[in-house]
Amino acid sequence: MKNSLYIVIVGCGRLGSQLANQLSRVGHSVVVIDNDEATFSDLSSDFSGFRISGDATQTAVLEEAKLKNADVFFAVTHEDNVNLMVAQIAKKIFNIPHVLARVFDPRREMVFERLGIETICPTSVGAEMFLSAVASRLATQGDIKP
Amino acid sequence: MKNSLYIVIVGCGRLGSQLANQLSRVGHSVVVIDNDEATFSDLSSDFSGFRISGDATQTAVLEEAKLKNADVFFAVTHEDNVNLMVAQIAKKIFNIPHVLARVFDPRREMVFERLGIETICPTSVGAEMFLSAVASRLATQGDIKP
Repeated sequence: MKNSLYIVIVGCGRLGSQLANQLSRVGHSVVVIDNDEATFSDLSSDFSGFRISGDATQTAVLEEAKLKNADVFFAVTHEDNVNLMVAQIAKKIFNIPHVLARVFDPRREMVFERLGIETICPTSVGAEMFLSAVASRLATQGDIKP
Repeated sequence: MKNSLYIVIVGCGRLGSQLANQLSRVGHSVVVIDNDEATFSDLSSDFSGFRISGDATQTAVLEEAKLKNADVFFAVTHEDNVNLMVAQIAKKIFNIPHVLARVFDPRREMVFERLGIETICPTSVGAEMFLSAVASRLATQGDIKP
């Protein structure tokens, strides 16, 4: 139990369900919130956490998830605005120590950071990986030239 | 010119346009292909490459993009199947030295790799970043305990 955290994930899409499955598998207590119950079908059969069907921007839903006990909070819905809003509620109202939000639009990353929300932007991370492939190609070309 | 590569990008969504803008800005010759002309509006005003509106699974469209001269090929549409197909054509038929495809569904990564296509899956990369946040939180907790 010492190594187990209480983790709340808002959004059960591709990323949210992958995180929920992996974190539950290694023994963490996981609660997933999504307003579309159908998304819970992506949770694996051995997922031992809780599913809450509801709108996470409603404080009542977050209270149902016992948010004040959470160690970690992930906002990974498909909407940047929802992620920003719930991440702020988690951080500022429920004082969760570790809050992380996904941002789709790289131009919004700065706004999130100004509001004190730590973000991960898979598009930017992906772009960097593609760009480093170009850099390595350039290096290879350099080898060929005199 | 020595440091300039000829780069073809299929898919002008958030990732494709970001790559096209950045690569064009640093002096590479970039061609972007998308079947939805509206996506080209995400290209910045200083984008100096070419836009081709068409279905990249059609060889004629790839020939129009002078694919055989390309140094690097990125398949970053929103459809995994399209990315796989065009990446294979680029690699096997046009012999492009560096071919990279985005995969959305992490379960498909293995299939792509078996077919010899190098992939980048932003979902998986993002998941790893979220998971490492959990790991660092655990480490912090460990410090508090006796």
